[in-house]
Amino acid sequence: MIKYPGGKIFQPKNNKRRINSSSAANRGMELEKIINESNVFYNENDIALITKRPTPINVIKVDYSSNARIVDAYFEKQSTTDYNGIYRGRYIDFEAKSCRNRTSFPLSNIFTHQINHLQKVIKQGGIAFFIIWLVLIDETYLVPADRLLEFQSNKTRKSITINELKKMGILIDEGLNPRLDYLKAVDRLFFNR
Amino acid sequence: MIKYPGGKIFQPKNNKRRINSSSAANRGMELEKIINESNVFYNENDIALITKRPTPINVIKVDYSSNARIVDAYFEKQSTTDYNGIYRGRYIDFEAKSCRNRTSFPLSNIFTHQINHLQKVIKQGGIAFFIIWLVLIDETYLVPADRLLEFQSNKTRKSITINELKKMGILIDEGLNPRLDYLKAVDRLFFNR
Repeated sequence: MIKYPGGKIFQPKNNKRRINSSSAANRGMELEKIINESNVFYNENDIALITKRPTPINVIKVDYSSNARIVDAYFEKQSTTDYNGIYRGRYIDFEAKSCRNRTSFPLSNIFTHQINHLQKVIKQGGIAFFIIWLVLIDETYLVPADRLLEFQSNKTRKSITINELKKMGILIDEGLNPRLDYLKAVDRLFFNR
Repeated sequence: MIKYPGGKIFQPKNNKRRINSSSAANRGMELEKIINESNVFYNENDIALITKRPTPINVIKVDYSSNARIVDAYFEKQSTTDYNGIYRGRYIDFEAKSCRNRTSFPLSNIFTHQINHLQKVIKQGGIAFFIIWLVLIDETYLVPADRLLEFQSNKTRKSITINELKKMGILIDEGLNPRLDYLKAVDRLFFNR
């Protein structure tokens, strides 16, 4: 602990995400925020150009008298994954998931439209994966989509154990900049670096 | 004209877009619709996987008592282009524009965030272009982003003549399926096919 003039106490920021005080939805948002911050870092340093697709919203009514305020709309189903872009000249596409189970990841977390989309990405020669945040142990893994989709297509089980998931993927380094260095994991898994 | 039993008259659908009855906004929407339809065709035939990014909307208030209806929200600025995806293993990124001027395309139609984004796409090794619909002559051109951005960066003029624009790009074939075969133009311009 460092005391600054004026008695202000410097507390080093805890880089670990607080997991107990947040709801499941917030956790999902938190992972999204961390990935977005990492993407800004990659973008600003010309490492990659990866962006989050906005949530599709069907706008029913706009109040133009009030600065084009949307007064009636509803969420539409995303037909793709959340993120895509380009890295090392290759097309990248992935979905981020938070898992708060202690022992297993329910495969029902992966939606049909995400499976279809990622299969098409692979078919087109793109790089497809999941980023899965294991909330309770606060570790984040990059799991290649083909491996997880193959496991799922066997349909023998409704979930995959955390241990199996870890073996299938690679632990993503966390730090300050980028917060979540998932492209380092992409390097190892898809570029043999 | 073909007469069907019951006196119903078969009228072949006019594939040309009607240009006089629609407002500028509708015209923009119409180009979007045609590109989206073409993308569905490319997607379903495993030719490419290209999607439109949803318009980003900042949701302020959701009425959960009424089926998660959004009751307060506003449009956010897009920070990218409208379309991206993968074709022949390459990352594709483009912006669609409608131009209703007779003689020139105002360069103010291209926004700073689109320029920045497309420059980054090129830097990352992606394929970047504009699809420009010349409304009054109902022709649509694919113009490589580097050419148009270079012209614009000279800053000597505020617009480019339609003739210059045509020479810079390539006329896109229109048909039934896909409505706008812009990937054929991509083949010629970026794959030497």
